[in-house]
Amino acid sequence: MHTNLAHSPVAPGGTKIALLVMDGLGGLPLEAGGKTELETALTPNLDALAARSVLGLTVPVAPGITPGSGPGHLALFGYDPVKHAIGRGALEALGADLDLGPEDVAARGNFCTVDEGGAITDRRAGRIPTELGQELAGLLRAIRLEGAELFVETVKEHRFAFVLRGPGLGEALSDSDPYTGGNRPLPVRALEAGSERAAALANEFIRRARRVLADRQPANMVLLRGFARMPRLAGFQELYGLRAAAIAVNGMYRGVARSAGMTVLDVPGTAPEDEFAALEQAWHQYDFFYLHIKRTDTAGEDGDFWRKVRAIEEVDGMLPRLTALRPDVVVVSGDHSSPAFMRSHSWHPVPTLLYSGLVCADGVAEFGERACARGGLGMLPATDIMPLALAHARRLAKYGA
Amino acid sequence: MHTNLAHSPVAPGGTKIALLVMDGLGGLPLEAGGKTELETALTPNLDALAARSVLGLTVPVAPGITPGSGPGHLALFGYDPVKHAIGRGALEALGADLDLGPEDVAARGNFCTVDEGGAITDRRAGRIPTELGQELAGLLRAIRLEGAELFVETVKEHRFAFVLRGPGLGEALSDSDPYTGGNRPLPVRALEAGSERAAALANEFIRRARRVLADRQPANMVLLRGFARMPRLAGFQELYGLRAAAIAVNGMYRGVARSAGMTVLDVPGTAPEDEFAALEQAWHQYDFFYLHIKRTDTAGEDGDFWRKVRAIEEVDGMLPRLTALRPDVVVVSGDHSSPAFMRSHSWHPVPTLLYSGLVCADGVAEFGERACARGGLGMLPATDIMPLALAHARRLAKYGA
Repeated sequence: MHTNLAHSPVAPGGTKIALLVMDGLGGLPLEAGGKTELETALTPNLDALAARSVLGLTVPVAPGITPGSGPGHLALFGYDPVKHAIGRGALEALGADLDLGPEDVAARGNFCTVDEGGAITDRRAGRIPTELGQELAGLLRAIRLEGAELFVETVKEHRFAFVLRGPGLGEALSDSDPYTGGNRPLPVRALEAGSERAAALANEFIRRARRVLADRQPANMVLLRGFARMPRLAGFQELYGLRAAAIAVNGMYRGVARSAGMTVLDVPGTAPEDEFAALEQAWHQYDFFYLHIKRTDTAGEDGDFWRKVRAIEEVDGMLPRLTALRPDVVVVSGDHSSPAFMRSHSWHPVPTLLYSGLVCADGVAEFGERACARGGLGMLPATDIMPLALAHARRLAKYGA
Repeated sequence: MHTNLAHSPVAPGGTKIALLVMDGLGGLPLEAGGKTELETALTPNLDALAARSVLGLTVPVAPGITPGSGPGHLALFGYDPVKHAIGRGALEALGADLDLGPEDVAARGNFCTVDEGGAITDRRAGRIPTELGQELAGLLRAIRLEGAELFVETVKEHRFAFVLRGPGLGEALSDSDPYTGGNRPLPVRALEAGSERAAALANEFIRRARRVLADRQPANMVLLRGFARMPRLAGFQELYGLRAAAIAVNGMYRGVARSAGMTVLDVPGTAPEDEFAALEQAWHQYDFFYLHIKRTDTAGEDGDFWRKVRAIEEVDGMLPRLTALRPDVVVVSGDHSSPAFMRSHSWHPVPTLLYSGLVCADGVAEFGERACARGGLGMLPATDIMPLALAHARRLAKYGA
C-alpha cells in the first residue's frame, strides 16, 4: 500500500477512473536530435487531451532502474514494487504469459541431463534449441495429476515455466535443483505445514516427467526451483474503495491485475479494438478500469521503431471511445520504457498524462517525452499516480484540520 | 526535525528570514484554459520579487493528499507533518480557532441525550441546529472550575471544542464517550500518572454540565473524547538557532506557531495591514518572522474567486513594506491550496517563491501556479523550505569536508 494513503482515508464516490497503460511507452530517438516513437506518432487525440491535463514523467522503481513489467505495473497500481517483489517462479510464469491465479503455485523449470544412475551431468541439457524445448513441453503437458491441473510453457532453450493449479496448495517448497552437477535431483520438500500436498504433486510430476523423457537425451529429466505464488496484496476494493476491472490480453498483466484484486474481464479478441469494446461494455459496472496495450512494447523490444509509432497511433485513434464515456479521471502512461533503439526495456522515465476536470492544466498541449518533462507533475514516482488519480476523482479525505 | 539538518548544523548569523504564508494560496481556473486566482491577480510587487527569486511548487504532505492547515503549517515550518500528527482534541480546538497554548488540554465534545437513568439514547442529541449548539455552549462557558480555565467553542450542530487551561494538566485521558448507545457516559480516567488532575477537572466539568443542561433535552448531556495537547516540538531556537516571531490573527495559526517555539506577537487589529505593522515594529527583535494571511483561504473556501483575487492583490500592495525592511531571505507560499472552484482545501501543490541575494534566479518573472511549475525549485516537499531558507540566509554549516 502506498504510504500516503495510511493517513488520508479513501472516501466513497461515484466517480470513474481509467488507467490506459501502453506497455513500454517511453522511447528514444533513433539518432541524436531526432524524435522518439511517441513524439513521431501523429496523436491528435492524445495531444488534445494533454492540453486539458497535467503531464509528467513517472519513475517506475527508482532512477536508473530498468523494471520488468511486473514491478512496473505494481508501481502504477500504487504498490511499492520493491516491498512487493514477485517470486521467481511466479515471474517466470507471468513472463511466459501463463494466466496466474491467486492460488496457483509456479516454478522455474529446466530440462537437464541425467546419467543412468540418475546423477545430473548437465543442468541445462546442453541448452537444447527452443523448438525442441517446445516439443518436449508438449509431452510434459500431457501428464495428468490427481486433483490438480498443470501448465507448462517454454521460455527459451531448456527453460520452461511450470504451474500447479488446485485447491490447498502451499508455496513453501524446496527446489529439486541441487545446483551442483554429479548430484541427483532432490525431492521437493514442504518447508511449512500446508505445502505438503503441493510437494507431493511436484514430486509426482517430476517422477512422470522422467519416465516420459527417458529416451529424449540430452533433455531426459527436469529440475524445478523458485516455487512461488503471486504476492498477496491488499486489493483495490480494500485499499482504494474501488470496484476495479482489468482489460488485458496477455497472461502476465491479467495475473498482476488479479493479484491487485481487479476483476479480469473477458476480451472478445486480442486487438486493442477488442479491449476498447470490453471497456465500453463494462463501463457501468466498475469504478476503475485498467486497460493494457501490449503492441507498443513488443515493437520496442523487436527494435521496430515504426511499428511502435503505428501502435501508438492506433491507440490514439481509439482514445475518443474512452473519452466518450466521460471518465472523471484518465491516466495515460506506461509500465516502463522500451526504446526501439535499445530493443529492450529501459530505465527512462515514462511519459504520463493525468486528465481530470480538477487538474491545474500545465498548458503543454503535446504528449511526448520532452513535453512531459516540461509538465506540471514534473518527475515523480509511479507509485504517486494512484493517490493523484484518487484525489482528482475526489476519493481521498483531508488529512488533519 | 527535518532530517536534512541532522547532518548540517545550523550556524549563527545576523541574517533575517521572512515567511509570508497566504493561507490556501494555490487555486484553479474557473474554466478550462483560464487563469487561477493568483494568475488573475495584479501582483506587480510579487512579480518583481519573483524575477529576483527562484520559484517552485511545494507539496505539503504528499502527492494527492489534501492537508488541513495544521499539517500544512507544520510542513512549512520544517516538521514532518505525518510524524508530528496533531491529536484529535487539539485539532478540533485549532479548527474552532481556539488559541491553544502548549499546556492546554483539548477534547472533542458532543452534546448528547441521556434518559432519566443517565443512559445515552442519542450520542449526537439529534444533531441539534448549530444555533442551539452555540446557545448551549454559552451555558457551558459559564461553568467555573477550581484552578483551571475552560473554553468551549461550537464547531457545528452537536459538536464543540473543549479546552482546559491550567498548571499541571496531563493529556493521557480516556474518553467519556462509551461509543455505544444505551450505556452511561464513562468517567474520564487518567491513563498515566500526571493526568489525574486533568481527569478530575474534566469529570467535574461533565458533572456540572449535566446539571446546567438538565432541562435542555435532547441536548441534556455532554461527551468528551480525543483528549490531546499540541504536539511537543523542538522549537525554532533549538532546531534552527532562530529567534522566531509569529504574526497571525486566528487561534489555529497562533497555536501551531507557539508549539514550534515562536513568540506569538500581539497584532493591533485583524487586517493584513495590522499584521504588517506588527512586523515592522518587531523587526529588530527577531531573526525569523512568520506572517499569516487568512483572507485568501476564507475566500477560496467560500468559492469566491474574485474575493480571493482581491485578497492576494491586497497582500501584493503591502509587500513593499516587507521588502523595505531588507530581509535576507523571503519565502512567499501557502500551507495548501484552496481553489475557489472547489470551495475547499485541495491537494494541488502550492506556488512558492524563495528570494535571497544568493538564489540562482530562474528568470521566471511572474508569481503563479504555471509560472512556479517552470521555476528552478521544481516540485518539492514543503519540508524542504526551511533548510533552503536557512541555507540562503547562510545559517547552515557545510556537511563533511
